Amino acid sequence: MGKKIVIVGGVAAGPKAACRVKRLMQDAEVTIIDQDTLISYGGCGIPYYVSGDVSDEAELRSTSFHMVRDEAFFKNAKGVTVKSGTRALAINRQDKTVKVKVLASGEEQDIPYDTLMIATGSRPFVLPIPGADLDGVFTISDLHKAIEIKDRIAKGKVDKAVVIGGGAIGLEMAEAFKDLWGVTTSVVEFMPQVLPRIVDSPMASMLTKHIRDNEVDIFLGEGATEILGKDGKVTGLRTAERTIDADIVIMAAGVRPRSEIAADAGLQISPMGAIVVNERMQTSDPSIYAAGDCVEVMHLVTGKKFYAPLGSLANKEGRVAGDNMAGIPSIFKGAIGSFIMKAFEVCIAATGLSLEVALAEGYDADVALTAPSDRAHFFPTEAIVCFQMVFDRRTRKVLGLQGFGPMGDGISARIDAAAAYISMGASIDDFGTLEMAYAPPFSAAIDSINALAYVADNLCDGRLRKTSLDIFLAWMEDFSTQSDWLALDIRHPIEAGPFVEKFGADKWLAIPYNEIRVRYKELPKDKKLIILCDAGTRSFEMQTFLDSVDIRNTQVVSGGLNMIRRMGVDWYPG
Amino acid sequence: MGKKIVIVGGVAAGPKAACRVKRLMQDAEVTIIDQDTLISYGGCGIPYYVSGDVSDEAELRSTSFHMVRDEAFFKNAKGVTVKSGTRALAINRQDKTVKVKVLASGEEQDIPYDTLMIATGSRPFVLPIPGADLDGVFTISDLHKAIEIKDRIAKGKVDKAVVIGGGAIGLEMAEAFKDLWGVTTSVVEFMPQVLPRIVDSPMASMLTKHIRDNEVDIFLGEGATEILGKDGKVTGLRTAERTIDADIVIMAAGVRPRSEIAADAGLQISPMGAIVVNERMQTSDPSIYAAGDCVEVMHLVTGKKFYAPLGSLANKEGRVAGDNMAGIPSIFKGAIGSFIMKAFEVCIAATGLSLEVALAEGYDADVALTAPSDRAHFFPTEAIVCFQMVFDRRTRKVLGLQGFGPMGDGISARIDAAAAYISMGASIDDFGTLEMAYAPPFSAAIDSINALAYVADNLCDGRLRKTSLDIFLAWMEDFSTQSDWLALDIRHPIEAGPFVEKFGADKWLAIPYNEIRVRYKELPKDKKLIILCDAGTRSFEMQTFLDSVDIRNTQVVSGGLNMIRRMGVDWYPG
Repeated sequence: MGKKIVIVGGVAAGPKAACRVKRLMQDAEVTIIDQDTLISYGGCGIPYYVSGDVSDEAELRSTSFHMVRDEAFFKNAKGVTVKSGTRALAINRQDKTVKVKVLASGEEQDIPYDTLMIATGSRPFVLPIPGADLDGVFTISDLHKAIEIKDRIAKGKVDKAVVIGGGAIGLEMAEAFKDLWGVTTSVVEFMPQVLPRIVDSPMASMLTKHIRDNEVDIFLGEGATEILGKDGKVTGLRTAERTIDADIVIMAAGVRPRSEIAADAGLQISPMGAIVVNERMQTSDPSIYAAGDCVEVMHLVTGKKFYAPLGSLANKEGRVAGDNMAGIPSIFKGAIGSFIMKAFEVCIAATGLSLEVALAEGYDADVALTAPSDRAHFFPTEAIVCFQMVFDRRTRKVLGLQGFGPMGDGISARIDAAAAYISMGASIDDFGTLEMAYAPPFSAAIDSINALAYVADNLCDGRLRKTSLDIFLAWMEDFSTQSDWLALDIRHPIEAGPFVEKFGADKWLAIPYNEIRVRYKELPKDKKLIILCDAGTRSFEMQTFLDSVDIRNTQVVSGGLNMIRRMGVDWYPG
Repeated sequence: MGKKIVIVGGVAAGPKAACRVKRLMQDAEVTIIDQDTLISYGGCGIPYYVSGDVSDEAELRSTSFHMVRDEAFFKNAKGVTVKSGTRALAINRQDKTVKVKVLASGEEQDIPYDTLMIATGSRPFVLPIPGADLDGVFTISDLHKAIEIKDRIAKGKVDKAVVIGGGAIGLEMAEAFKDLWGVTTSVVEFMPQVLPRIVDSPMASMLTKHIRDNEVDIFLGEGATEILGKDGKVTGLRTAERTIDADIVIMAAGVRPRSEIAADAGLQISPMGAIVVNERMQTSDPSIYAAGDCVEVMHLVTGKKFYAPLGSLANKEGRVAGDNMAGIPSIFKGAIGSFIMKAFEVCIAATGLSLEVALAEGYDADVALTAPSDRAHFFPTEAIVCFQMVFDRRTRKVLGLQGFGPMGDGISARIDAAAAYISMGASIDDFGTLEMAYAPPFSAAIDSINALAYVADNLCDGRLRKTSLDIFLAWMEDFSTQSDWLALDIRHPIEAGPFVEKFGADKWLAIPYNEIRVRYKELPKDKKLIILCDAGTRSFEMQTFLDSVDIRNTQVVSGGLNMIRRMGVDWYPG
């Protein structure tokens, strides 16, 4: 008989490890234990199931060749035994057994193992507020809940939905409610922006505007204080600022590692509650592995452990665990925190550290912004994309990249290339010469990622002096009290005209880019000039010229009006 | 007065360097010399101008903010002097002057420089065959030729076109002729595949099939021997095998560096005729820089110099030259040879080394193939993509990646990430854990690039034994004489059925994937089993199982029927 491999948890990391170890050791007895009856599903697909993009939940449990991954499938195709509806209660490390309870019968058993793997995943965080237990309050934690939510919508029971949490799952669920089903939908986010810590505020603002343009309300900086109900059923949500009617409330306030069984067995647990593993996905007990949402992994930028509950990482970690359980010394070096999300017609993505996180981690961090064409600007399908690079001024290392643009794979191309590059320690200079495959239907001769590195390079070397978007927008909000600066708009007169008309030429001066070299003497010398164009590129060029004629009190708005327009400021003309 | 910077060549690298150096040294006198009257254009856009995707040639000479890059633009916006219609005749390194001739007047001048840059680009290779000088024979070398080609088509003078050369420009031109204008179009390629040396034969075959499906004839392994004409005008093309009627012949047989002026000045030139530069784009004369299609650069995989005439590299090299001319020690480390092309509804791309090139370079090279879904297989826009990874068995380094799939940016996302990773020396194992940003609308939890690395890992460690597509297809072509092997088709019976019916169960045995573990005793032990599924993944899994029951004479066809179907074999049922 071969080795007994027992795996607790049957969603992502568990099945992946089970199948891998079985392929490597066909004589092993591999058993997966899961308390649920539905296993091995694509949890990240739940919003698309609720929206109707995926018509049947079974598709989330099927292989690419359309077999449903149930107990029979694992038995017949994989040679792996699945005990579903079976809860793991405790690990006896001395005897090398797992005590389980068959939920249907209540029967308890001790299952022996040679090697154990814990893949217990995560659980959604339930806010400790009144009403959290009302009928109609859901977390997005398993397929059963997803099926019930969709069932309620399909039966016409949902007219108004509130989502607590402006993270990825919350926003995807909001789109699912609104886009196909036309449900009146609101999102309440405690932090002052959506996707907190994942992207920085300019990116979050562009996303927020797009979602609001699609008629989903987003309330930022508002914590849910109470879920209201009547006769045991949800009727609304209260924040400090307002009450919102609702037939359904989705709590999408993040997840926590499900590590109790590991903690109870005395395995090492991190301060935030995740199971501690080494590069081989081995816990503090060499006979016990762990992977997926229940563990913490190394961050490839900070070199510190972090919590990254993602199905894509769970699968990779699961394969490494499978290798090691079979005696192949594979390594999972860590993760970089790549993120991508569709929202109606746009895509937002990030990898590495945000500026906020980088500063909190102690880097001498700064950001470069740009908003160029995503492909040759003469190619018919061209569109503007907005990118932000986070870098360290001292080491010139790139720490992160964020992108926002039209739906498609153009943003992911840049984010994925950046993830690969950053994980290898790439610098601004590496990014400047990174070779993105070029042809006009796909990219620009100077790719947006190269252009971004050029901005970072000029910033880092002190050649480019900028105003951050946040500061500029704050000035514009408090326009009447600001008298020490003047906008210098170097775009085409047709573009600049409405701004001059609205704000007056003493506040918003328009001189076209190609006339500055002869007309610079018109510029006032007693005020700071904020140079503005579409993306910031021409502004920098004119800043270098103005320096040469001793007009040095200038600042560039990187990202320019392409980004400002997408952020949805109320002072924008027209 | 500032430094005198003179730049010979005004298309890509030249203007980029000129504008960069001017931004860095506003007091420099920067002059661009070009013999053409049209400068600073996107040459890679010519096929899209001919096709009509780009309506006006001026768009290829315009900025993203719609200013035409002519002499006035460079003067007013950039502060750079352009002398167009002016040919550089010779460099006097002693006196630091360039002798030029104003083509309109015939006047000659000596232009002094402190620093000179050569950006003379490339010229198309003109085949030394009879008829190459007939009216109607064109190379794709400048905008004037493109304008004339489009003019002839638009005036109805072109019914039949022949393109010599199945490289990127040739195939793009063929699509331009056929797709919008409906011109009867043929491509003649001397080598036995399109895109020779860029991609390997399975990828080239899929592309060829798709282009042929779009009614462009492609003749492989046929050299053009003579261009036929009447009254000085083209009437056709002759190869050893056939004569093809034509009103127009496009010679797209590659380009050669235009380095005569550098050679005449005694600068170091490579054996293939490119100007030799260091990492700072400096020639063997420290006062003379060079960049773009006239230089050779370092290959980041082989560590050898190579010739990579691409507009995207020209721009990057130009910026580095500009930096160094201004005293900033920037470095252009080299290139990796990334390539991407649209062809009707598909995209093909590559980075790094092809198998053919890798073997020629002496690597212990092999390939992994796979053909999975490009995103979550349950997501509505999912499609099959085909990838090939080239790796070195000894070092486990990844040497190259090739991809083929539907038009869009999904292929470039993988190629660009691979380019970044490979240029940093990434191994198969790095690719296995590469974190591609994951959400169902964009990618699969196990991304195609990870899946490919898994195949390579299993191959490298000897766990996966394969038959190459080439060998399998050769066997199938010579089916009747092959008796020592048997196809084992493990797909769904509906998929396998037509094959069994066509080839007979003694040659094409169908047992579904999920029944092998109980039915393996039905397998003959005296024959080699070629295991087939859609992508190769299930085949490998069954190979590991069959090994465990001592049926070891098996081979997997990686890439599987997903790739074979796209390669257009004539034995494919239905």
